[in-house]
Amino acid sequence: MGRKIVVVGGGAAGIGAAGAAKATDRSAEVVVYTEYEDAAYSPCGIPYVHGKEIPSFESLFLATKQTYVDAGIDIHYETRVTAVDVAAKTVSIEGQGAQPWDRLVLGTGFDYADPGIPGGDLQGLYYVKNIRQAMEWDKVLDSVKVAVVLEASPLGLEMVTALAHRGIETHVVDAAPWALAEATDPDIAQPVEESWTEMGVKMHWNTPARELVGDGEGHVRAVRTDDGELPADLVVVCTKKVPNTRLATAAGLKIGSTGGIIVDERMATSAADVFSAGDCNELPHGVSNVPIQGLSGSHAYAQGKVAGTNAAGGKRAYQPVYVPWGMVAGKWMIGGVSFGETLATALGIPYVLGVANGISRARYYPEMKRVRVKLLAEPGTLRLIGAQMVGGEGIKERADFLAMAVKTGITLEDLAFMENVYSPPIGALNEPIAVAAQNGLASLKQ
Amino acid sequence: MGRKIVVVGGGAAGIGAAGAAKATDRSAEVVVYTEYEDAAYSPCGIPYVHGKEIPSFESLFLATKQTYVDAGIDIHYETRVTAVDVAAKTVSIEGQGAQPWDRLVLGTGFDYADPGIPGGDLQGLYYVKNIRQAMEWDKVLDSVKVAVVLEASPLGLEMVTALAHRGIETHVVDAAPWALAEATDPDIAQPVEESWTEMGVKMHWNTPARELVGDGEGHVRAVRTDDGELPADLVVVCTKKVPNTRLATAAGLKIGSTGGIIVDERMATSAADVFSAGDCNELPHGVSNVPIQGLSGSHAYAQGKVAGTNAAGGKRAYQPVYVPWGMVAGKWMIGGVSFGETLATALGIPYVLGVANGISRARYYPEMKRVRVKLLAEPGTLRLIGAQMVGGEGIKERADFLAMAVKTGITLEDLAFMENVYSPPIGALNEPIAVAAQNGLASLKQ
Repeated sequence: MGRKIVVVGGGAAGIGAAGAAKATDRSAEVVVYTEYEDAAYSPCGIPYVHGKEIPSFESLFLATKQTYVDAGIDIHYETRVTAVDVAAKTVSIEGQGAQPWDRLVLGTGFDYADPGIPGGDLQGLYYVKNIRQAMEWDKVLDSVKVAVVLEASPLGLEMVTALAHRGIETHVVDAAPWALAEATDPDIAQPVEESWTEMGVKMHWNTPARELVGDGEGHVRAVRTDDGELPADLVVVCTKKVPNTRLATAAGLKIGSTGGIIVDERMATSAADVFSAGDCNELPHGVSNVPIQGLSGSHAYAQGKVAGTNAAGGKRAYQPVYVPWGMVAGKWMIGGVSFGETLATALGIPYVLGVANGISRARYYPEMKRVRVKLLAEPGTLRLIGAQMVGGEGIKERADFLAMAVKTGITLEDLAFMENVYSPPIGALNEPIAVAAQNGLASLKQ
Repeated sequence: MGRKIVVVGGGAAGIGAAGAAKATDRSAEVVVYTEYEDAAYSPCGIPYVHGKEIPSFESLFLATKQTYVDAGIDIHYETRVTAVDVAAKTVSIEGQGAQPWDRLVLGTGFDYADPGIPGGDLQGLYYVKNIRQAMEWDKVLDSVKVAVVLEASPLGLEMVTALAHRGIETHVVDAAPWALAEATDPDIAQPVEESWTEMGVKMHWNTPARELVGDGEGHVRAVRTDDGELPADLVVVCTKKVPNTRLATAAGLKIGSTGGIIVDERMATSAADVFSAGDCNELPHGVSNVPIQGLSGSHAYAQGKVAGTNAAGGKRAYQPVYVPWGMVAGKWMIGGVSFGETLATALGIPYVLGVANGISRARYYPEMKRVRVKLLAEPGTLRLIGAQMVGGEGIKERADFLAMAVKTGITLEDLAFMENVYSPPIGALNEPIAVAAQNGLASLKQ
């Protein structure tokens, strides 16, 4: 046996790391510890089972346990790591004592931020994360008449949409003035909110939750806000994701300003031979250099692969992140890259703006969808620095494109004169990205 | 009144030129001559009305005649230009004699290549182009039981799909070994052909048509091939588009090796003050520098805008073309940029290949579609030089992205480590483009 690589966490980061480590060095002993009963399922699919878009939880499993056995990856399920000793190079396993490692990869993920209001110990508070718990909550949902979603975070948007789609009277409560206000501009959120209204969702913006109110028997019965009490059979807590760094902090690893573990481009932490990947990390944003955390499962998986490769003696660098994002919210898709106007303004980043309201297919073709594109470019160079979109199709693919455009220094000029596919069932004569760029250039000439 | 700009042709190129000329110089006198009853409709939509995807021809009209009157553009319908005199700076108008111009823009479009076989004068041969004629043919289609589509060109693919969708027994005859063999690789065409089989289409590959056989009363009744006679109530002639340069050639304008008018980046022809745009032109391909012609309506419109702007005294350059393309064929979308393996090989262009069979959404999400991506990169630099795709969604947007990638020198390395949106209803954990690039890089290490 070669070197022993211990991975803490069985999510996208941990599984990515284990697989990459084994692929890099077949002789390595790769051991994964996870607190949960399973590894390698897609937690991102949970809201869609609740929403009945996906018929069952079974389909969310990506691989069987035997797959990992066959791959030579030794996963210990329902096993808690209680401490890391970076000097002795051991992990303490509950009930098993200290286990040695040559290289350690942390993939300890995230926790939902404490809502910070009374009533956090009541029953009927649902934190969406683990699939076994989700299966239990799904049965509960059958008898839920009214639900409150606490905070319009990305998961909050998915859960609002899912619960409304399931026919539950759904309220969303958020101190911010619009949906996903940290990431989106109000004009991007507006169609989503309109479609939620059509779906019967009740929105409570500028409305901080003050208390989770119990029924006297330990179960939540309402959410108290400045606007009064909102009755609730269930509260879905969709607060911000915060890095889970309990082990890292106790082990003395360097933690950054956002609360995430600091890593270099190899995903190496401040401790020798200790790597870290996924939601427990923070990383500098490619444009602003501001540290960010709470990225996607795709990022976690990619970071896991980098961490696992390097832990096994390979060489792989993680690239700066520009964060393309996208999701379904209400009857729309929203997405973008880096930042929109709201966040750029908050960060003090100046920008030239180009906006277009375009279409996804020929105007006359069935199921043509509206697509609104906003491009933000650096004044002077006109290099793209961010984008936001709302539309009916093609948002993910455009966000991927624009993330590469931000990364490689593509300008509004480039985008204004881009060639595009024109074919009535799949693309309009004028690509909305190109029109937005043209409008941005035109605004400079006024 | 300022300078007089005459535009010959009322298609995408001509209308684009007229609009851009007027926008550049409000005082210009802009006159458009078209042989047809209409301008500004979408000929690209015609196959979809025939296929009953679009309910009526009316929706294909993009603007009313009054729109152009209001915009100060003087369109002469059903008016034939019979000659151009570049020395005298006049056009000869049938029945009106010579009319002067200060600047001339040719947007004379394309013709279908003569099939070059006996029977070309029969009735029942449909050349898809003009909307009024399409309306008449659409009535004919109601009584057509069996149709033959001559050549699996892009239009041929659309018409095969449309006629089959309409319930007509449809045969396609082509001397090439697979569908759209000039543009696609066999593995890209294969799913299309499989879906056509499901739709009841009869394919005759490696089968040149030898004769259009008449019924003795001047109407086609069959297509004779080396495989025998194929009965046909109607033959849709979908031969290659060839530049219509009758006026240009007679006027002594320089014509290129493909038969298209040679223009510079301003869309200026070899004659002073004469511009040309759209399907009558040839242009160098951005990667290979080989002259190409027969591009899309989107290209024609963009060239028209460049020609019109420069004709009116403005300054605008057309960029090299990398030709993203995409279409619906059978039950699939196909598309790409620049070239696939077949064309690269034919042109003697060496390449590194990366291929992936990916998915468009999370594996477990409803209506997830397969997406096959093939990337061709320049050996050594690994710059992307071409791509081909077949899939169920997101092909147009990926082709647009990859065209920009080819243009700006993005490499397989860049694409292998691209960030991508991951959200179950709209994007898979692994973007197929990234996986194809990773596979391309892996193939180099073997």
